Amino acid sequence: MVPQTYIADIAEFAGKRVTVAGWVYNKTGKGKLLFIMLRDGTGTIQAVVFKGNVSEEIFAACENLPQESSLRVTGTVAADARAKGGYELQADDVEIVHSAADYPITPKEHGIDFLMDNRHLWLRSAKQHAILKVRHEIIKAARNFFDSQDFTLIDAPIFTPNACEGTTTLFETDYFDTKAYLTQSGQLYMEAAAMAFGKVYCFGPTFRAEKSKTRRHLTEFWMIEPEVAFYDLQQDMDLAEQMVEFIVGSVLENRRDELEVLERDIAKLENVSRPFPRILYDDAVRILREAGADFKDGDDFGAPDETIISEKFTKPLMITHYPAAVKAFYMKRDPQRPDRALCVDMIAPEGYGEIIGGGQREDDLDVLVERLQKHNLPLQAFQWYLDIRKYGSVPHAGFGMGLERAVAWICGRSHIRETIPFPRTMYRLNP
Amino acid sequence: MVPQTYIADIAEFAGKRVTVAGWVYNKTGKGKLLFIMLRDGTGTIQAVVFKGNVSEEIFAACENLPQESSLRVTGTVAADARAKGGYELQADDVEIVHSAADYPITPKEHGIDFLMDNRHLWLRSAKQHAILKVRHEIIKAARNFFDSQDFTLIDAPIFTPNACEGTTTLFETDYFDTKAYLTQSGQLYMEAAAMAFGKVYCFGPTFRAEKSKTRRHLTEFWMIEPEVAFYDLQQDMDLAEQMVEFIVGSVLENRRDELEVLERDIAKLENVSRPFPRILYDDAVRILREAGADFKDGDDFGAPDETIISEKFTKPLMITHYPAAVKAFYMKRDPQRPDRALCVDMIAPEGYGEIIGGGQREDDLDVLVERLQKHNLPLQAFQWYLDIRKYGSVPHAGFGMGLERAVAWICGRSHIRETIPFPRTMYRLNP
Repeated sequence: MVPQTYIADIAEFAGKRVTVAGWVYNKTGKGKLLFIMLRDGTGTIQAVVFKGNVSEEIFAACENLPQESSLRVTGTVAADARAKGGYELQADDVEIVHSAADYPITPKEHGIDFLMDNRHLWLRSAKQHAILKVRHEIIKAARNFFDSQDFTLIDAPIFTPNACEGTTTLFETDYFDTKAYLTQSGQLYMEAAAMAFGKVYCFGPTFRAEKSKTRRHLTEFWMIEPEVAFYDLQQDMDLAEQMVEFIVGSVLENRRDELEVLERDIAKLENVSRPFPRILYDDAVRILREAGADFKDGDDFGAPDETIISEKFTKPLMITHYPAAVKAFYMKRDPQRPDRALCVDMIAPEGYGEIIGGGQREDDLDVLVERLQKHNLPLQAFQWYLDIRKYGSVPHAGFGMGLERAVAWICGRSHIRETIPFPRTMYRLNP
Repeated sequence: MVPQTYIADIAEFAGKRVTVAGWVYNKTGKGKLLFIMLRDGTGTIQAVVFKGNVSEEIFAACENLPQESSLRVTGTVAADARAKGGYELQADDVEIVHSAADYPITPKEHGIDFLMDNRHLWLRSAKQHAILKVRHEIIKAARNFFDSQDFTLIDAPIFTPNACEGTTTLFETDYFDTKAYLTQSGQLYMEAAAMAFGKVYCFGPTFRAEKSKTRRHLTEFWMIEPEVAFYDLQQDMDLAEQMVEFIVGSVLENRRDELEVLERDIAKLENVSRPFPRILYDDAVRILREAGADFKDGDDFGAPDETIISEKFTKPLMITHYPAAVKAFYMKRDPQRPDRALCVDMIAPEGYGEIIGGGQREDDLDVLVERLQKHNLPLQAFQWYLDIRKYGSVPHAGFGMGLERAVAWICGRSHIRETIPFPRTMYRLNP
């Protein structure tokens, strides 16, 4: 029997006869020769169909084969220096599995709405394929990073009885005659888990019902959130820096072809090595002032502010010590400057914006109770969270990285909707 | 400076002075000696506090240290054959970080509701800790298995506009003036993705609003769902078998200590090697008949049926060719017996029930349209799914493994609620 192989493994079969199963990506021909660019999801290879090598019926069928038709091509693997990947397939048999009429995505330009409506097919296109291969690499690298450092994966719940950071952007569902909310962050649960496992992370979907139309927002996005007992802000920043360097390094090592398909400036990624610059909120405000930006001291930074600030640096930038007033209730205050939070945001270079937010958590029970009350949060709902400060409270810190923002930056895509297989936005719930 | 270490790495510091930070798991003493069992999430170690080695204040404080108080213990790592892990810590300094009064989970027996209400603390207990370490190992092994075989991870969306398998068990949410449903399975999306990437999988939370009180049901559970283009049922079964063998092997290799904490019969897991038995639905019915079970031919198997059938085998059992009528609309029929589906369920041994369901998918457009109509499913909502059969349709197959069911089996836990960090059931949305 002729062995079947994936195109990615074709080199192992040089000189041998194999079958490759896939789809017609492209087709050209002249006279007695047909060149079928075949893709199978792992790569592409040119199948050369010479009229003399196959039956007349098969040749005629191949001549009329529409784009995205599925087929099994059997032939000999031949080295060819001109071919992408170094090999071509000299076909001697072609089985047409299914002939695809009128595939909607043609080499011509299409509008973004049309492409998004056909997201289930658009995934077959080279750039979308490359982005999602990089996404997979980033996920794998992030998990490997934490696993190799003995973090325990603790999946946070999706259904939650209360909101972590305000109730205006929550998705709500009926839950057997009560209300449940879709999680916005696994952090509070990770804090509890860190006291049981020392070093933990979660990596799952999170949800925000934000009425935002910007290119940086999805209603459903994935976050990786580590949390470590006995960590302070500095150790938290070291961890974030190490993780980002490791992720970018893994993509450069394993997904260089995909970065080239995406025409990514690879030198800019190669520059992402530790240490990353670390500045105070006050320094960032000074940069904005010098750039003549219209910014009110004490405010949080918006996306345009982040772009101006990050343009001063060629690496991811860590900004710390924001005014406590613009940060969440659980942030620990700087004992030296109690109006400042022991927090950090990491801003990607090249204007890709915030990818990480985190910091040290308040570990004093009384301070935290007071903070909850000031934020008008229901004390009863947070009793379990307060327990963490009752039974062996320790300093601890963590952060969250928005996966899709990291993918957008590393792939060099301006719009976040291309960084997730099936994006969900205010206007899109399909396919 | 004295180096700080995790207990898991203590052997590297034999004879050296280190600091360990953690919580009091247990404490005993006699006269001038105190033995503090310290846990830090990575392990436990006995810290020996001798009155002559620390100040009087510290010794007095240690004498009165409540369970789960947090502390930093500095001392010399000494080999001790009697000690768990082989080492003890001869303390010369103890810093009490936080004294925990009245920790609610004591060594005495507690009711399950009480423990579940305190799930955020119960995670610190040895057995729960062990289950979640095994869970992490299973997740890691499953991902490694697919990654190493060049599958591409394609995260399925959580928000979906329509139901995959019936609408009675769907969680619904308002989605900017329309309705969205929480996914019950990523399968349909994986089918689309398999045509773009060849071999894909998703691994994320799925949701069923089942009014079920059994020990096998959660409203929120994680599923791993591979899908492969050009695969048939046999290849699908081979893949499922390989994956399960790999996962069990990884747990045996890396989490033997945890299995021992759980008092799992390890020999039963060591027996899980390929090939697994494969029987037809009809064979399974015969087993039920012979056992005198009250079972109507043509029905799907319930949990008690699965237990009776699986008791005949010592390995996971694959049952194929169920009546098409009890299976989902997308199942391909057996061309030899059109009333049978090309499907497979894998039943864990020892009465742990179904862990995998899958099969070959219908790839003919006309048949699928007819099937959707017969199931009264809205054709319009499935247009994108039908596209997969319009543009290069190919035979394809896949399966879904319920993570928590696999964890319950491998850990030997009778109730699924202990297999996920924060379980969600009909009656539980807290903590």
